[in-house]
This record gives sequence, C-alpha cells and structure tokens, in this order.
Amino acid sequence: MKKPLSFEITKKLDGRLGRAGIIHTPHGDIQTPAFIVVGTKAAVRGLTPEMVKEAGAQAVLANTYHLYMQPGEELVRKMGGIQNMMCWGGPTFTDSGGFQVFSLGAGYGKNISKVLKDAPVVPLIGPREDDTEREDAQPRLVEIDHDGAAFKSPFDGSIHFITPERSIEIQHTIGADIMFAFDECTSPSEPRTYQREALDRTHRWAKRSLDFHKSRLNAETQALFGVVQGGRHEDLRKESASVLGALDFDGFGIGGSFDKNDLHTAVRWVNEVLPEGKPRHLLGIGEPEDLFEGVENGCDTFDCVAPTRLGRHGTVYTKDGKIHIGNERYKSDLTPIEDDCDCYACRQYSRAVIAHLYRSREMLGAMLCSIHNVHFIVGLVAQMRAALIDGTFDKLKKEFLNRYKRD
Amino acid sequence: MKKPLSFEITKKLDGRLGRAGIIHTPHGDIQTPAFIVVGTKAAVRGLTPEMVKEAGAQAVLANTYHLYMQPGEELVRKMGGIQNMMCWGGPTFTDSGGFQVFSLGAGYGKNISKVLKDAPVVPLIGPREDDTEREDAQPRLVEIDHDGAAFKSPFDGSIHFITPERSIEIQHTIGADIMFAFDECTSPSEPRTYQREALDRTHRWAKRSLDFHKSRLNAETQALFGVVQGGRHEDLRKESASVLGALDFDGFGIGGSFDKNDLHTAVRWVNEVLPEGKPRHLLGIGEPEDLFEGVENGCDTFDCVAPTRLGRHGTVYTKDGKIHIGNERYKSDLTPIEDDCDCYACRQYSRAVIAHLYRSREMLGAMLCSIHNVHFIVGLVAQMRAALIDGTFDKLKKEFLNRYKRD
Repeated sequence: MKKPLSFEITKKLDGRLGRAGIIHTPHGDIQTPAFIVVGTKAAVRGLTPEMVKEAGAQAVLANTYHLYMQPGEELVRKMGGIQNMMCWGGPTFTDSGGFQVFSLGAGYGKNISKVLKDAPVVPLIGPREDDTEREDAQPRLVEIDHDGAAFKSPFDGSIHFITPERSIEIQHTIGADIMFAFDECTSPSEPRTYQREALDRTHRWAKRSLDFHKSRLNAETQALFGVVQGGRHEDLRKESASVLGALDFDGFGIGGSFDKNDLHTAVRWVNEVLPEGKPRHLLGIGEPEDLFEGVENGCDTFDCVAPTRLGRHGTVYTKDGKIHIGNERYKSDLTPIEDDCDCYACRQYSRAVIAHLYRSREMLGAMLCSIHNVHFIVGLVAQMRAALIDGTFDKLKKEFLNRYKRD
Repeated sequence: MKKPLSFEITKKLDGRLGRAGIIHTPHGDIQTPAFIVVGTKAAVRGLTPEMVKEAGAQAVLANTYHLYMQPGEELVRKMGGIQNMMCWGGPTFTDSGGFQVFSLGAGYGKNISKVLKDAPVVPLIGPREDDTEREDAQPRLVEIDHDGAAFKSPFDGSIHFITPERSIEIQHTIGADIMFAFDECTSPSEPRTYQREALDRTHRWAKRSLDFHKSRLNAETQALFGVVQGGRHEDLRKESASVLGALDFDGFGIGGSFDKNDLHTAVRWVNEVLPEGKPRHLLGIGEPEDLFEGVENGCDTFDCVAPTRLGRHGTVYTKDGKIHIGNERYKSDLTPIEDDCDCYACRQYSRAVIAHLYRSREMLGAMLCSIHNVHFIVGLVAQMRAALIDGTFDKLKKEFLNRYKRD
C-alpha cells in the first residue's frame, strides 16, 4: 500500500530528543518543527488564506467536531473537502473531534497550559456516575461507553453518537492530509482510576480507528496519527506511547491537558518511547515557553488557537511578552507592534493606529493583531528550527525566555 | 493662491446633465463618475487598504464626526492624518460631520434612500421648541443656534460645540484632499418653516467655512466643497445651489435625505444651477438605482456605507438584485456570488462556502461579502463612466435596471 506521508530527520539536538526534519505530505512539505495554524471551522479567524501563507504558515488544522456540526459532513463533501473550502493548497490537518466532544462534559482546572477551544455551554444529558469523585463535578453533555461518545448538539439539541469508525469516516470526507485517531481527552483533575479506564478506551479506539482507516483507499492519500494520552501519570503516558507506538500509525499526537510545569516532563516520557522515525504533534499547545519545551523534547508540530483568539481580542505577542493594544499607553505610540517584525501589520501600521482600530471595534484591528500573532508564533518555531540546524537552540531558548515575560 | 484641485469634463451625456471627467487631487486622479468607498473611522470595515484598492476603489471617505470623537483631533494629528492612518496613498474625502451631529437628534422616516450611518442612541439634552410640530418628535441630543451645534458625546456624555470654523479646523487636521463645509442636514419630515431657517443657517455656515478655510495655507492642498441643502422643496434647492454656486468652493456636495422617487428631480434642480465646471458629490447615496439617477443628472462622485454594512451582515449585490447569503438555498450552491465577477471573493469562493462562513460567524464571511459589494458598486459606477464615454449610458441603464430587482 502506498504511504501518504514520509518523514525525514535532518538534524538532532545533542543528547536530547529534539530534532529538525521534513514531513512530506500529498500537498507539500512541512519543515519541522512547525507551528500549524488553526482554522477551526475551515477558516483562520480574520485571515484570508493568502494572509495565512504570507504570515509564514506551512499548514492549517481544522476541527472535525466543528465541521461535523456545521456545515455537516454532506456539505463538506459537496464543497470538495477542506482544501477547497479553505482555498488552501498546502498541507492540512484535522483533529479527531475527541477534545471538543469531551470538553463539552469536562470541568477543566485553571492551571492548564492548553487553551480551551470553542466548547459551547449547553444543557446537560445527565451526570456521570463517578462524578461524585470529582471536586469540579459539573453537568455533562457527553455520555461515554466502550463503543464511543454520545453528545448533544449545541445547535439543535439533537443527540449524536461518535464511534472511532465514524470519526475516521468524517475525517475521510473532510480530506485533510493528516488526521488523528478518536481519543478520549481527559481533564487532569480526573482521578487516576478514571484516567486508567479512559486510557484503555483510547487504546481500543485507536486500534479501531486504524483498522477502519486501513480498510479504505483513503489510507493511501491521508495519514493517520494515533493520540497518546495518560494525563500526568508517568506510567500511563509511557504505556500509551508504547501501545500506540507499536501500531502502524503514520505519526502520533500527544493529547491531554498539561500543567505548565510538567509539560516538558510528560512530553519527554512519551517521546522517549515513541518510534523516532515518525512525526509527533503536540496537540493544542502554542505559548512560546511551551513551544520551546515541546521542540526540545522531540515534538515536530504544534497547533493552538491562541494567536488568532488573543489577536481578535487585542492581545499581541512581542519579544518582551504579550501586550494588550487597548492599554492607554498605546494610544499615541507611533512605533509598530514590534520594530523588527516584517509582518503585514508591523510593516505599515503603528500601535497607535491599531489601538484606535481596536477601540473603534473595527474588524481591521482584529485582523492586524491576528496576522501579527500568527506571524510571531509561526516565525518563532521557524527560528527554533533554524537554531536546531545550526546548533544554537540552547542560546536561542535562553535569550528568548530571559527577555520574554510570561503572563 | 495655488488650487488644490482641478476638474476636467471629458464627455457629456446628450441633452442631459450627466458627464464623465477627471478630478485631479494632490494624491492622484479620480476618474468620474466614481463611487467613493466609506471608511468611517479611518478603516473600510473588513478590508485592508490593499483589498480596497484591488476592489477598484479610487478614493476613500472618512467621517469627521467619528474621528473627532474617536480617537480625537490630537491623536489624528500625531498619527499623521487620514492617509497615514489608513495606509492609503490615494485621494481621500472627509464629510463635515454635520450629518452625524444632526442625526443624533433627528427622527428619520422610512421611505428614505439614504442609509443612516452609525448614529448612536443616547440620552437627550432636551427637546427643541418646535418639536410639537413634528409627528416623529423624539428626544434630541443636539441643540442648534446661529453659531453652530452643541451635542452630547455618546462615549462619555461630555458636551461638544461645533462651529463651521471648528469643523474646518478638524478637517484640516484630518488632512483629506476633499473636505465638506459644515451644514445642517435636515430630515425630510421637518416642516417647511424649519427647512427655510436651516437652509439660511447652512448658507451662513458655508460662507464662514469657506472664509476660515481660505485664511489657512491648507487651502492650497485641501479642497473644500459647499453642501447644497433644501430638502424636497424645488425653490429651496435651487436657491441653495445658486447661493453656494456663487461662492469660491472647489466643488459641491448635495446633502439631505431624498425620497426614492424624487431623488433624480432634486438632483436635477440643483445641478442645473451649480457651475458646470466644478465636481459634484452626492452625499450618502449608493444603491444601484440611485447611482444611475445621480450619474444621469450630473453627479460626479458618491459615497455610501451600504456595500460594507450590507456585506458585514451577509447581504450581497448581484445583477439580479441583492441576495442574503444566509438563505437556506445557498448552503449547497457551488457557484460564486456572481459567475462573471472577478472580485477576490468570486474568484475563489463558492456561495456554499461563504454561506458556511456566514453561518459560522467567521470574520472571513463578512470580509468576503464586503469585498464583493465594494467591487460591485465601484465597478457599476465605473461601467456607467465607460458607457457615458462610448455613448451607451441609456442602454446600460435600461439593461441593468430591467434585470436588477429592487428591494
């Protein structure tokens, strides 16, 4: 069977897991490490595809759950799949929908690096039996059984049941180059007994996702990544990497929510076990400090809604940390967001003008901030790649993080 | 004294007032008739300046009232004026702010062609004495005396007083190529006694605007247009055109709200009297049927928020009339908004994709609809120009309006 994807490692980080490489997909190469820009509903918020490309993005990631709900599988098929919908000729990803489905029902803690995506708040189906174990017990919209997950549509209240096979079928229709196996993304606040149970389910679902995928011709043109879970437990993470690593996936996702302080540890546990020769995607991670940890510890690609979500609300990245353009001090600041940035926004607009646009609620303000942020984060990971190749990764990391003020 | 603007007529419509020409401004030429795209707060909603240019726009118009309120004169000055703020190297216009100031206090009827701009609804200063005469009497935010208009800021409740001199001073700071004299824009529902009184005031203010303008060096680089008023009264309209036409303005605006059915009549009254050799701008008019009437009756430029306002809310122009992209039937329509349109949206997106983006509340949906509408309206007036020049204006008008279904 023809393989949809190949991966070559061009440089390794001395004594650690980090590496630079190239993922060859049916729609072009991705120079890794790379930040994949999120276009949840088949659009990067506030950017045309040309702007996404000009900001340096090599690939975009859309969300299976969202596209399944709206416009729905049948319309996605009619519109010719994700690349036609997005007018994006380059590589594309779809997540499995697992994160969104489960976050309808989960109560996430605050000290979590992962940015929660657009999980709508809607009436529940009913509480799960072991909710009494959880401190943050909340009404749930999701019911999970061994076969899949039932959830209630936030649009019309209709009940949907997603199995691993259905997730893959939907992703086949969407047509991205890289898809993810349907997994159960647990909250870190779940008790260990639940993590254990959920992980076994995720492994069974991974196997079923893979079997179903391989039974279709799509397996020749679309790649499937298995998603490693296991929460914050070393043994579960390693077991997950080992179980999934032994299966014939084209690459791997690393899922779940991480604590800021143990992200690098959890990632290292996993990447020490996963087969070296296959690409690894760290799901939903995109803050600069986390990207450095992810790259250093062997992740090849990343995605996160933060650049556009923050930009839409007036927060922009700078090498000194994030700033909010609505702050009084920027009203008369005639410098660009960043002096040495060559993004579309910084080339021609001052902070003062962007502040005016933001305060005036002009769409252009949100567009410019989003463009800058995408350029910043994509560019930062591209810099990490260059530094990996010329042996200056540690210097770049130290200099960047010394200057960059975290939230 | 150096003149900031010159106008040449290159072709006239047989036996009528219509003409094609060129307005030469300090920032380039405008081939007339031309539709001027509105960027109320120094941004065309949802479009970058490059998109505005690509849609065919030759010039943009910003609003003095809005920029005076936000970010304020001093910040506009610091940012280097409208062209720097908008990153727009071509010709620019500012209206006088009169329409916005007075629409804070006016109650407009429904059968009005002009699209009401962003007049915020806020607590009143107090009723005017003759409000009892008006059927649509409403609380007012504006107090008018012989010297100018006082109004209450919808942002912070502060009281502002705008005189003709202040309006010109603010417009000098904003720095557009073409400015308008401060006028009182009356509602067509006002009684004749009030129209008479307001017209006299507008004429006195026009003279004061002009005197103040001529006393500054800006008069060498910025043009000032007087604004003809007079409501729906033939004698008042003609008198206004005569009084203002005798003054040394660089061109003229035609203001006020019109009834759909008498727009061409009111415009003809005025343009028969105004000096032929100076350009005429029909303020706030932009629907296709009105543009044909305006061009046929001797107007050279037009502005209206409709293309971006409608686009932002999912309504797009087609040669068959306006359609709403949120309509069920477009969900699976794989054709572009218009088959033969070469705008950015129509070149690569189907109605189905735009419908999905609209339903998903993606900014890109609003952007694409706005781009199409700007391209459509700017292009329609450019077609009228071409038809004037090659003698096919009547044919174009007939064919277009036969097919175009009005609201």
